[in-house]
Amino acid sequence: MLPDLTTLSDFRNALAQAPGADADARAACEDRNGQLTKPPGALGQLEEIAIWYGSWRGTARPEVRAPQVIVFAGNHGVTARGVSAFPAEVTVQMVANFKAGGAAINQLAQLADARMDVHALELDRPTADFTQGPAMSEEDLLAALRTGWNAVDPASDVLVVGEMGIGNTTSAAAICHALYGGEPGDWTGRGTGVDDEGLALKTAVVAEAVALQGSRDGLEVLRCLGGREIAAMAGAIAAARVLRIPVILDGFICCAAAASLARLHDQALDHAVAGHQSAEGGHQALLARLGKAPLLSLGLRLGEGSGAALAIQVLKGALACHSGMATFAEAGVSDG
Amino acid sequence: MLPDLTTLSDFRNALAQAPGADADARAACEDRNGQLTKPPGALGQLEEIAIWYGSWRGTARPEVRAPQVIVFAGNHGVTARGVSAFPAEVTVQMVANFKAGGAAINQLAQLADARMDVHALELDRPTADFTQGPAMSEEDLLAALRTGWNAVDPASDVLVVGEMGIGNTTSAAAICHALYGGEPGDWTGRGTGVDDEGLALKTAVVAEAVALQGSRDGLEVLRCLGGREIAAMAGAIAAARVLRIPVILDGFICCAAAASLARLHDQALDHAVAGHQSAEGGHQALLARLGKAPLLSLGLRLGEGSGAALAIQVLKGALACHSGMATFAEAGVSDG
Repeated sequence: MLPDLTTLSDFRNALAQAPGADADARAACEDRNGQLTKPPGALGQLEEIAIWYGSWRGTARPEVRAPQVIVFAGNHGVTARGVSAFPAEVTVQMVANFKAGGAAINQLAQLADARMDVHALELDRPTADFTQGPAMSEEDLLAALRTGWNAVDPASDVLVVGEMGIGNTTSAAAICHALYGGEPGDWTGRGTGVDDEGLALKTAVVAEAVALQGSRDGLEVLRCLGGREIAAMAGAIAAARVLRIPVILDGFICCAAAASLARLHDQALDHAVAGHQSAEGGHQALLARLGKAPLLSLGLRLGEGSGAALAIQVLKGALACHSGMATFAEAGVSDG
Repeated sequence: MLPDLTTLSDFRNALAQAPGADADARAACEDRNGQLTKPPGALGQLEEIAIWYGSWRGTARPEVRAPQVIVFAGNHGVTARGVSAFPAEVTVQMVANFKAGGAAINQLAQLADARMDVHALELDRPTADFTQGPAMSEEDLLAALRTGWNAVDPASDVLVVGEMGIGNTTSAAAICHALYGGEPGDWTGRGTGVDDEGLALKTAVVAEAVALQGSRDGLEVLRCLGGREIAAMAGAIAAARVLRIPVILDGFICCAAAASLARLHDQALDHAVAGHQSAEGGHQALLARLGKAPLLSLGLRLGEGSGAALAIQVLKGALACHSGMATFAEAGVSDG
């Protein structure tokens, strides 16, 4: 059951108290994996994710039947600084495209037989320019977290969260720089396609923002440097943790949202795998910080949840093998 | 139309004369790709394979509707040298498992909605031990090539060929060493799981075999160092080239079969992409020689066509986006 969120403390407490995976189910999955008609380890990462998935679903022969894809959209005051190759109006235009079924994520959600929901968060009220002060008030942050928290269908069995928000690679880079330090340029990239000058500007903007706003706390970083859609993603990933719904993380922005949760609690992302490694500048370093090996690495840099939605197919392949294959005994095959 | 193969020259000629991809369709695919509601290049490798696939299918909005997976099985005289962790009886046991639906490839073919065929090639008549002389006669080679050639359904729209054959990573390593040189140890790996001593033995066996059999011709290398299932894979990949059916290559053994075709003709593999990079020793180097970037890299080392069958899902994702997305004009989205 998902508790109501009435304060930010409710969110912190729910994440801290969320139960872990099922150790008995993990042992049963490992046992089954060892009996399947293949040399030990021959299915590589597919074996690992089948065992991981079964341990969260509490069964030795899991299946994916009800994937959910949620796309959150938000607008960013920092676009006033000229950090994106696209105008801010594109956020609302793309939301219409998601609703009409024309975007990449629509096609990939359909391929995965996933339910897809779209939540546009106050697009006519962009966050504040975080080079001038906090992006959001505590009230705004709580509202965005709640939108994500309540968007998760408790009956779903795998969750992908995606985003749309012109300017949000700058916000994600600022979050990473605040959480992990390093140089601001370690975390910035070309987003939707800025040139060298645009990249230098983004990097300067991130440096300015993080110099101004000093907190290292996961929720404070989200509030000061995030966006409504990024906070909503964090809310949804946290709700899935409480509900024991496995999550496939998308690219840089999704993982920045996830990183804020990892800062709040060490086991906050145990229910999550990395769907893909994006081409966006800081994503490889961010995955390394999160300790997640990506399932796909196809040079995607679109967001929307696209890479993670495609990775649902890899998860389905892993579970098809794990739950559908014959054992050595069943098939009468010599096991070496 | 697929010509009959009555001699090995028929095979060489058919491959040399096969038509290439459709340049007009490629241009139409590239044009469409540029209009879709995403930043240019944001779908990375998915964009490339959608354009590649459309150019071979002759249409700007291609779909995959009829995938075919064919598994070929053969037995190898070189197993007498003790090169495998599993006994040779496992080949026939696994063929029964394929036919009963219990193997990994059955699950992955089903997930892809693929037709699956199994061809066991004279399992009671292993090839000769190629450390003593050629693995096959010319007649044997032709028969195996024909099995693959005639196994391809002309109505299929993507082809995966897989294999089962205890000892065949040794054969594939010998093929690669004969075709590309280097050190024998560049091409050997642990196969189904040999230990350090087993790996050293495989490497010595490969060195012996290639020292004995000096040809660098694609078909001669297949005949002297290959196996029936490997030759059948080459026959099927070549037939697909003639029929303009795109191929997703599987792991090390499949790519060794493909490499023999690449030696026969420079454009022999233009219709093929690499489905995955296997964990088997020489596969990364072999993909580099073939100039193919893998779609997946999940540490698989099972064979059977498993990695390529899983990669059908990636192809479907690419085509779902390419053929299903709205254009900027259709969606009313600003294109930057």
